[in-house]
Amino acid sequence: MKILDLYTKMKSDLNQIELELERSISIDHAVLNEASLHLAKAGGKRLRPVFVLLAGKFGQYDLDVLQKVAVPLEMIHMSSLVHDDVIDDADTRRGQVTVNSKWDNRIAMYTGDYIFGKALTIAAELDNPVIHQYLSKAMVQMSIGEMEQIRDFFNIEQNVRHYLLRIRRKTALLIAISCLLGAVAANADEKTARQLYRYGYNVGMAFQIRDDLLDLLGTEKQIGKPPGSDIRQGNITLPVIFALEDERVQEALLEQIRVIRDENGAVDTKPAIELIRSSTGIDKADRLADRFIEKALQAIRELPAIPAKKHLVDIAHFVNKRTY
Amino acid sequence: MKILDLYTKMKSDLNQIELELERSISIDHAVLNEASLHLAKAGGKRLRPVFVLLAGKFGQYDLDVLQKVAVPLEMIHMSSLVHDDVIDDADTRRGQVTVNSKWDNRIAMYTGDYIFGKALTIAAELDNPVIHQYLSKAMVQMSIGEMEQIRDFFNIEQNVRHYLLRIRRKTALLIAISCLLGAVAANADEKTARQLYRYGYNVGMAFQIRDDLLDLLGTEKQIGKPPGSDIRQGNITLPVIFALEDERVQEALLEQIRVIRDENGAVDTKPAIELIRSSTGIDKADRLADRFIEKALQAIRELPAIPAKKHLVDIAHFVNKRTY
Repeated sequence: MKILDLYTKMKSDLNQIELELERSISIDHAVLNEASLHLAKAGGKRLRPVFVLLAGKFGQYDLDVLQKVAVPLEMIHMSSLVHDDVIDDADTRRGQVTVNSKWDNRIAMYTGDYIFGKALTIAAELDNPVIHQYLSKAMVQMSIGEMEQIRDFFNIEQNVRHYLLRIRRKTALLIAISCLLGAVAANADEKTARQLYRYGYNVGMAFQIRDDLLDLLGTEKQIGKPPGSDIRQGNITLPVIFALEDERVQEALLEQIRVIRDENGAVDTKPAIELIRSSTGIDKADRLADRFIEKALQAIRELPAIPAKKHLVDIAHFVNKRTY
Repeated sequence: MKILDLYTKMKSDLNQIELELERSISIDHAVLNEASLHLAKAGGKRLRPVFVLLAGKFGQYDLDVLQKVAVPLEMIHMSSLVHDDVIDDADTRRGQVTVNSKWDNRIAMYTGDYIFGKALTIAAELDNPVIHQYLSKAMVQMSIGEMEQIRDFFNIEQNVRHYLLRIRRKTALLIAISCLLGAVAANADEKTARQLYRYGYNVGMAFQIRDDLLDLLGTEKQIGKPPGSDIRQGNITLPVIFALEDERVQEALLEQIRVIRDENGAVDTKPAIELIRSSTGIDKADRLADRFIEKALQAIRELPAIPAKKHLVDIAHFVNKRTY
């Protein structure tokens, strides 16, 4: 499996990132330390550091510099997850109990604040103002994206453009910035950095669409949390928007969504999920994800044929894999 | 009244800061915009910008540069207030309804995140890495301070050192950093910057002690929220710690605190407040605030006798004024 090869190859560098990550968030404060480390150890694919390191290969690769970008980016991602779980009232993430359910929402909020601030202190060790500009921009856009998601809960009037704008802010931008800043920190030329940014943006879009599809089509074991959580909390994702355009299921689905909303999610979401699955929504969302991946590959077509390029191609395919 | 003179003198510069503040947090997103502006318009003394501008007078005063420090500092303060109100479940602050009560906790959390991120994008327009280092450090320490406050709720075993460490992080550091960064942004020499930092730190400590005293001794009109909110939520402040050392009230006060805790604050706090007022706690806290102000004045003794120095002295006395 190609993606495993990649992680094996990058193992020693990723281990250093991992150690740095743990070192960075550990703190002389029992609850905060436990909550932060709990979060770090919950793991994840460390996708953002992987992108930073691979992008760095297109310039002067220096792990000690690159980790000062990779670690903050993963921490910004982690801090957004903690705040996200507060909002979602999620009990588990990646099969692990969340900070808000293990401690409480107040702890989770400040753990998020702390990790975010800590992320910036690490980046502040680098002099390049471009890095600060992009990291703070990411934070701003991600908060707006999250607010939009809340605003759009149970809004069945939203269209595809709405959805794409939201996931661009919520997910794609941070991945795009990971690719960009890896290149910037390695002093790659500007054109290369721009191409990597575009790659990251499109991969990020596909990634979120796949994630939203998985929430409808995956098993609890695959997702690490009960399926259907999105629709349960009113998060109208791409397959749902497309399903609502499918006249065969439209009315029945609208009715199901109304019931979920009226009962505050305390109902069986299977009927809704079945309707979405039987609609053209899944296939349409599938195809849109494919298109973003094509654009991602297109963006890096002109980059030199070093092994890192091959890895970026592999990741794009991996992200887009149908596991359902 | 000296402090009014100061605001009159600085009026035009503070107006520019105010406009920049509104411009900075306004956003093309209805709820977020309304929530942020609501917060900006709730006002406050804009103490942090005032310190930035006054500190800037000890170097090359350039309002366009200084506002890129003053506005982010006020925004970091504002964002911490929003998150703070989520934790406190506060309905009003400065006599205005809070973001969390007007909208909800989720909106308040992301409004705080957004304002914080936005603060950093403004500071990122300046190249000086020292500024980023201190702003992110402030964020980290403030989150730790807030976590410590939660951890110490209803902890009647805590001592004065505990309390001082907590308010140092929660309040004093950001004021110290405001003074420091005003000097740094104006290219004042290092010694001057250090002295201003020490001034800010000590004024900040006194400021928080006075605030905690006011919560016990002030009227609802003065405080902008019901008095006794600290003890109601278990926040054991300096006068309470001192009162608990006073054997005449110790046992009765412990009992009252126990009742408040057991009833989750849903009791009359007047008996507790009466006990604290009748103890030596008030006077002892008063005197500790005085000592911090003495140290603040001491810190800037050697600074040149420009009008800004006189204003800093006036503010120190103003902060320390007994309004109860």
